[in-house]
Amino acid sequence: MTQMRDLTLDDIESLAVGAWILGTGGGGSPYLGLLNMRQLYAAGHKVQLLHPNDLEDDDWVAAVSNMGAPLVGQERLTDSRTIARAVTLMEEYTGYRFRGIMALEIGGGNGIQPLMAAAQLGRAVVDADMMGRAYPEAQMTSVSVGKLQPYPLTTVDCRGLESIVEKVPTWKWMERVSRKICVEYGSIAATCKAPRTGAEVKQWGIHGTTSKAIKIGSAVREAQRLHADPIDAILSVEPGKILFRGKVVDVERRATEGFLRGRTGFDGTDEWRGTKLELSFQNEWIVAWLDGEPIAMSPDLICVLDSVTGEAIGTETIRYGQRVTVIALPSPEVFLTPEGLHYVGPKAFNYDIEFKSVFAS
Amino acid sequence: MTQMRDLTLDDIESLAVGAWILGTGGGGSPYLGLLNMRQLYAAGHKVQLLHPNDLEDDDWVAAVSNMGAPLVGQERLTDSRTIARAVTLMEEYTGYRFRGIMALEIGGGNGIQPLMAAAQLGRAVVDADMMGRAYPEAQMTSVSVGKLQPYPLTTVDCRGLESIVEKVPTWKWMERVSRKICVEYGSIAATCKAPRTGAEVKQWGIHGTTSKAIKIGSAVREAQRLHADPIDAILSVEPGKILFRGKVVDVERRATEGFLRGRTGFDGTDEWRGTKLELSFQNEWIVAWLDGEPIAMSPDLICVLDSVTGEAIGTETIRYGQRVTVIALPSPEVFLTPEGLHYVGPKAFNYDIEFKSVFAS
Repeated sequence: MTQMRDLTLDDIESLAVGAWILGTGGGGSPYLGLLNMRQLYAAGHKVQLLHPNDLEDDDWVAAVSNMGAPLVGQERLTDSRTIARAVTLMEEYTGYRFRGIMALEIGGGNGIQPLMAAAQLGRAVVDADMMGRAYPEAQMTSVSVGKLQPYPLTTVDCRGLESIVEKVPTWKWMERVSRKICVEYGSIAATCKAPRTGAEVKQWGIHGTTSKAIKIGSAVREAQRLHADPIDAILSVEPGKILFRGKVVDVERRATEGFLRGRTGFDGTDEWRGTKLELSFQNEWIVAWLDGEPIAMSPDLICVLDSVTGEAIGTETIRYGQRVTVIALPSPEVFLTPEGLHYVGPKAFNYDIEFKSVFAS
Repeated sequence: MTQMRDLTLDDIESLAVGAWILGTGGGGSPYLGLLNMRQLYAAGHKVQLLHPNDLEDDDWVAAVSNMGAPLVGQERLTDSRTIARAVTLMEEYTGYRFRGIMALEIGGGNGIQPLMAAAQLGRAVVDADMMGRAYPEAQMTSVSVGKLQPYPLTTVDCRGLESIVEKVPTWKWMERVSRKICVEYGSIAATCKAPRTGAEVKQWGIHGTTSKAIKIGSAVREAQRLHADPIDAILSVEPGKILFRGKVVDVERRATEGFLRGRTGFDGTDEWRGTKLELSFQNEWIVAWLDGEPIAMSPDLICVLDSVTGEAIGTETIRYGQRVTVIALPSPEVFLTPEGLHYVGPKAFNYDIEFKSVFAS
């Protein structure tokens, strides 16, 4: 019999902290999603977490995300009904009934979006995503690496805008067409991506990422309670590496073409005193340069954390003077293959750098 | 019993000439559509013309057009299968079966697109459109004036791109979202607009416009055969007025935001010697200034014709040195109301001019 885990509100509080860390700067702040979940739980809703291996091969699973430039999410607030509508529109269009709802990306607010839709619609949340973090573009997924069908996709906006990208020849075309719709909606749209079968999620999903985010967030929150070092707490549950400690001295940021792009400069402190770190971003942190040398890059996860609280800092919220610790976490295996690097390696972001992992032996 | 008129290939040759005149510079050159129809007729296809009053109230009618910047149509050639696919996609999406197919706009190549789809799919062409000419934007229609439902809309591209704008709060939002999809496809897309019932077409369609285009084109071709004046021939079948004769001295043209925009300058000849005409365009000719004074404007039809052949010259084909006669033809009544002028009067194109018709007594 299928075992489902009841998610408590405390789990979701931890999920918000952990997903923001796995967001590598992007995926949007989870805060507004968390507020939605507090309200939904107060109203008696509950969501359950289903392991992907408990799916039947012919089950249908919805994959959802709030697409766009994270900065816009600070003004266009998130509402659980909007993401739920993206799912029901997909059901109406395809005639499928979704057994579960999963995240496109576990990172940031998009790690909570499936819970919002699941609570509204009374479905399970599938404990998996397609990125194991957050990435800015539609073709940067495990299912794209797996060459699964990229369409259809539904887009929904709180003002009653609904569009369906019905067919595209490639994942990159899905990115191009859906991005333009998203930009016209105001650079943010609730989306339901191409439906996946249970068999596809079992083979190509990145499993256990919701649980992982809860585990990381729980470790951070526990350290906060105990006044322990939250960075140590993260590294006690995940095989990460500290790359840098310092303070923010420069932020250059612009919302453009449906993305938030820019760079951030840091002056080193502690053992990095006298050095300078620079991080470039496209929604997510993509490449880190220490004194001009690239030391970490996508697909490795680059996480900028508040040195005191251990909580993540997003590309849309980072600001002058913040004291940060930058850590790296390992990428899902699927992105370390040549096919994976084709989609999410530094060259996919137009950096002429050969990928070298922080975790290479 | 419903009477349907068999369209001969000669009718379609005339339609191509007449629709280009009614296109007021836009709607795209009908030439490639005509080539498609010659080929379809050579292969044994035939299309029939159905008067809108012969529709049942609950019949469904497809409204089609090739959307985008006319200039692009010179490189991305038109193919009857693409517009037919926009129609079948709409049938698949809505579950309707269309009895007939009508033009969004009778002007230019878009006056022939319904025939291409009808030949491919074995349906009737409905003798009506929603503009009585060509206009650049989705909200510039009789059905928009009639406040009919603006969605859904399908878009199709020869490379296998298919999207559906499923819901929008206003016609202007339909324009915004579908335009961005069209731009990303390469500033051209085959589209099937919001389906209309027979009752809606009877009340809000602009009736008889396919027949009218055939009549105008036939008059021009007959004059060409007899070496008679083709401009006189047009004015013998339509209540138009000659505005200007002259030659093209200046063309400024740019494909931008999914439109072809610009202006054209003319030096007068004959009784207009010593005067200068300027026409501004957004796909279609919008306002005519004679020596700086606006003398004709949308919604009146401004048609630039080759003075020798009487054939229309489009905003994408006009060039230095051409000898032209500029005539005005009257607008459909529906656009002369305050509500109509709201959508297609000079202010709708950002000209701070009060509409005054060439035909005002």
